[in-house]
Amino acid sequence: MVVSGIHSVTKALEYGFGLKLYIASEKIASRLVSLCASAEKKGCEVLIGNLPDSTEGNASQGVVLEISRPKCLSEKKLYFQMLETSETHFLLILDGVTDPRNFGACLRTAVSYGVTGVIIAKDNSAPLNEAAFKASSGAAAMVPIYEVVNIARCITNLKKRGIWVFGADVSADDRLDKAPLSGNLALVMGSEGKGIRKNVKKNCDSLLRISLKNEELTLNVSVATGICLNEIYRQQQSEP
Amino acid sequence: MVVSGIHSVTKALEYGFGLKLYIASEKIASRLVSLCASAEKKGCEVLIGNLPDSTEGNASQGVVLEISRPKCLSEKKLYFQMLETSETHFLLILDGVTDPRNFGACLRTAVSYGVTGVIIAKDNSAPLNEAAFKASSGAAAMVPIYEVVNIARCITNLKKRGIWVFGADVSADDRLDKAPLSGNLALVMGSEGKGIRKNVKKNCDSLLRISLKNEELTLNVSVATGICLNEIYRQQQSEP
Repeated sequence: MVVSGIHSVTKALEYGFGLKLYIASEKIASRLVSLCASAEKKGCEVLIGNLPDSTEGNASQGVVLEISRPKCLSEKKLYFQMLETSETHFLLILDGVTDPRNFGACLRTAVSYGVTGVIIAKDNSAPLNEAAFKASSGAAAMVPIYEVVNIARCITNLKKRGIWVFGADVSADDRLDKAPLSGNLALVMGSEGKGIRKNVKKNCDSLLRISLKNEELTLNVSVATGICLNEIYRQQQSEP
Repeated sequence: MVVSGIHSVTKALEYGFGLKLYIASEKIASRLVSLCASAEKKGCEVLIGNLPDSTEGNASQGVVLEISRPKCLSEKKLYFQMLETSETHFLLILDGVTDPRNFGACLRTAVSYGVTGVIIAKDNSAPLNEAAFKASSGAAAMVPIYEVVNIARCITNLKKRGIWVFGADVSADDRLDKAPLSGNLALVMGSEGKGIRKNVKKNCDSLLRISLKNEELTLNVSVATGICLNEIYRQQQSEP
């Protein structure tokens, strides 16, 4: 698997996923020099002057990194890592986001707002492929991603561990910006077309809607995720 | 130009852009029946049983609409329409968003938050093509889009007309959620890679940043647009 673009490549290198770094031009732009240096420091081979065949014409900013595919972690690991840390848990659960670009954008936003882990379903989720990695701007290498068999059951387990779980739902009665959002929490976002599945919804502590002026359309899932995470962070920031 | 997917097709029909409606299957799903009816009411031909060749395999939900391409309006028209309306002006200015999917997602969010007009530059903007229309979920047919030659000059003209213009900028000192955002205003969003151009930035009344926990990455432009529009709407809602 390869990633391209300076941001994604930098992050994948930094987080130890780099195998081979390809630079298109023999004249190395100054902003690529430090990239080459950090690749070498990580023991990653640097190849200058051409790109892998499969990426020709598709490689943004003339830089491509062959990487080892980031691995999703198990549900067991999730609970283990929750025990290990003393920081506040802030989880994002994606219930059936199937578009890799949306998945990647959600990861990117999750990292920016300090999400401590992203949970996806084993089936019916977007793959963590090149498109997802690229849209994540490297975030796919920066946040632990847990793959679980049954999201509804996972939510039950999280609630037992003191996590308050709320879902974003267009038809909820309560408004996101009026709800108190602090402490250990998990935000559930549903699929592009259908939102959160019924049995998952039923298990949430609360359902909240983003207040919109015009409800003829809905928001794109990655945009809605950004708005929810921003609201949580805004409230965390204004706590005394 | 064709659009597919029930949402986009419904909106394009409703707003008068429909030319020919194609339904893939002869067994018409109940949710498509009202679509056919509204197409016929608009004088739009309905063809059942196959899709246009170019869309085979690409048409989501088995429904395709051939449409007349939405036209961008002129800068003159913008000022004229601003005079004509008594409602509060709420404009979104996209300074160099070049990815059609990001452009479409921005339009979709703009409609959801009641933006009264979207302004783009004639050059160096994403085209209003099929990918943009699809990502907009039909919003491209619902909000006026103005194409201007020079965004910096347009901002000067808007300021003369009493619009408060602020730009979203990652390196701004002031925080979005701490700034008072009410009355007639325009939000400027920059390009995916580089943000707002220098000469455009210089003309803004104010620059504001989205407060993030982790600033290693930036947000996707359509996600950032959603967060800014949501904050403006949140403040409008909490006004006495």
